[in-house]
Amino acid sequence: MRNIKITMEYDGSNYHGWQRQLDEISIQEVLETTISKLVGEDIQIIGSGRTDRGVHALGQVANFYTNSTIPATRFKKIFNDRLPGDIKILKSEEVSLEFHARFSANMKRYKYIVYNNEQPRPLYRNYSYHVAREIDLDKFKRASRCFLGKKDFKSFMATKSLVDTTVRTIHDIEIEVEKDFIIITFIGESFLRHMIRIIVGTLVYVGIGRIDIGEVEAIILGGNRPLAGKTAPAQGLFLEKVYYNE
Amino acid sequence: MRNIKITMEYDGSNYHGWQRQLDEISIQEVLETTISKLVGEDIQIIGSGRTDRGVHALGQVANFYTNSTIPATRFKKIFNDRLPGDIKILKSEEVSLEFHARFSANMKRYKYIVYNNEQPRPLYRNYSYHVAREIDLDKFKRASRCFLGKKDFKSFMATKSLVDTTVRTIHDIEIEVEKDFIIITFIGESFLRHMIRIIVGTLVYVGIGRIDIGEVEAIILGGNRPLAGKTAPAQGLFLEKVYYNE
Repeated sequence: MRNIKITMEYDGSNYHGWQRQLDEISIQEVLETTISKLVGEDIQIIGSGRTDRGVHALGQVANFYTNSTIPATRFKKIFNDRLPGDIKILKSEEVSLEFHARFSANMKRYKYIVYNNEQPRPLYRNYSYHVAREIDLDKFKRASRCFLGKKDFKSFMATKSLVDTTVRTIHDIEIEVEKDFIIITFIGESFLRHMIRIIVGTLVYVGIGRIDIGEVEAIILGGNRPLAGKTAPAQGLFLEKVYYNE
Repeated sequence: MRNIKITMEYDGSNYHGWQRQLDEISIQEVLETTISKLVGEDIQIIGSGRTDRGVHALGQVANFYTNSTIPATRFKKIFNDRLPGDIKILKSEEVSLEFHARFSANMKRYKYIVYNNEQPRPLYRNYSYHVAREIDLDKFKRASRCFLGKKDFKSFMATKSLVDTTVRTIHDIEIEVEKDFIIITFIGESFLRHMIRIIVGTLVYVGIGRIDIGEVEAIILGGNRPLAGKTAPAQGLFLEKVYYNE
């Protein structure tokens, strides 16, 4: 029995998220079907975590156990020849049997892209959040600092999520501006469902003046989803990297 | 009666090209339906030219005649509120009744994007031509110069196209390299069907060593489609700008 780690890029536009579902096509299902057929075993893929419908990945990580004797690095090419154009393996490697894509993960890095210009642009629509109203970048950046560190992010979780605790730690939030794009990088151990998208939605509300920067702390402390801004759309979010001790 | 000029961006991925067709969805049809409904007239849109299925536009131009009293510059917003996300108006303006998007056009600029790296990348797949084999950039650039000027491009036309003449003039071909991308800009009065894509396919064949650079002149002079390289895929092509005397 061997344990194979794969790192992937995917365009989430045409999938109902990472996780296998009964009626809808998911990335996990496409991978499991492709790999199972190839090695002739019933393969289960363990992802580092879910991505929602429409969310993209530049470096999603997963692992699977197999009895196949295919060299680990060869899996990449063999899978890519069979996978659809919107899911591709960047790297395949053998890891110790203890490696678990989800439980072994230390940290994750996400990028969220806001496109801030009055003009709607078809070529950006699946890969960014279009905000037509002008964003005050200074306020946007200042508000982002309120989210750093260990906090109860209860106001920034999709309603009806089931979790033991809503406390999470964000280690870093970095904001780059390139022409009309605001690129926000988040690094943290783990994130609640929709947490990044609700934080971005709140930052955008601060940037366009719908939420006062002075209210942000109170929104966090309030611990109540309706206080925060709206959930920014899925298509602006990219899972960029999953960190492991290696 | 007024004549309205519109400049558009579109993502061609989900359309069977610009031109209205009986059974398939086209960009022209979506525009005509949207505009006709809005102004309550049966509007015909005149495009600067067709783009094939999967080809994108950053600056396609069209015009239409209407009796509507909507201010010309307002059309942009009104249309955009109704158009799907993958077709948007960048500019709307009133022009003289003589203006004809196709016959008044002097020149067109296209971009073709080649992504040259062994690694397939899902996020680039609809917007570039993925060439896994290494391209010799020097040969690629040198070969491109053979296509400059007034020539008979018979070898570079989709078979079965009906045209009076296969002579065309390419005024400029510019090649920029940015990381793994080769961006080729073509400027010319007009192009034959698939002409740019067959030229790019030929340049790629030169770059990967399947066609010798010394053969390129003979391929042009030969005037026979099978001599040239394969037609590069539609998704790498962008109609960038249509030039008019203004």
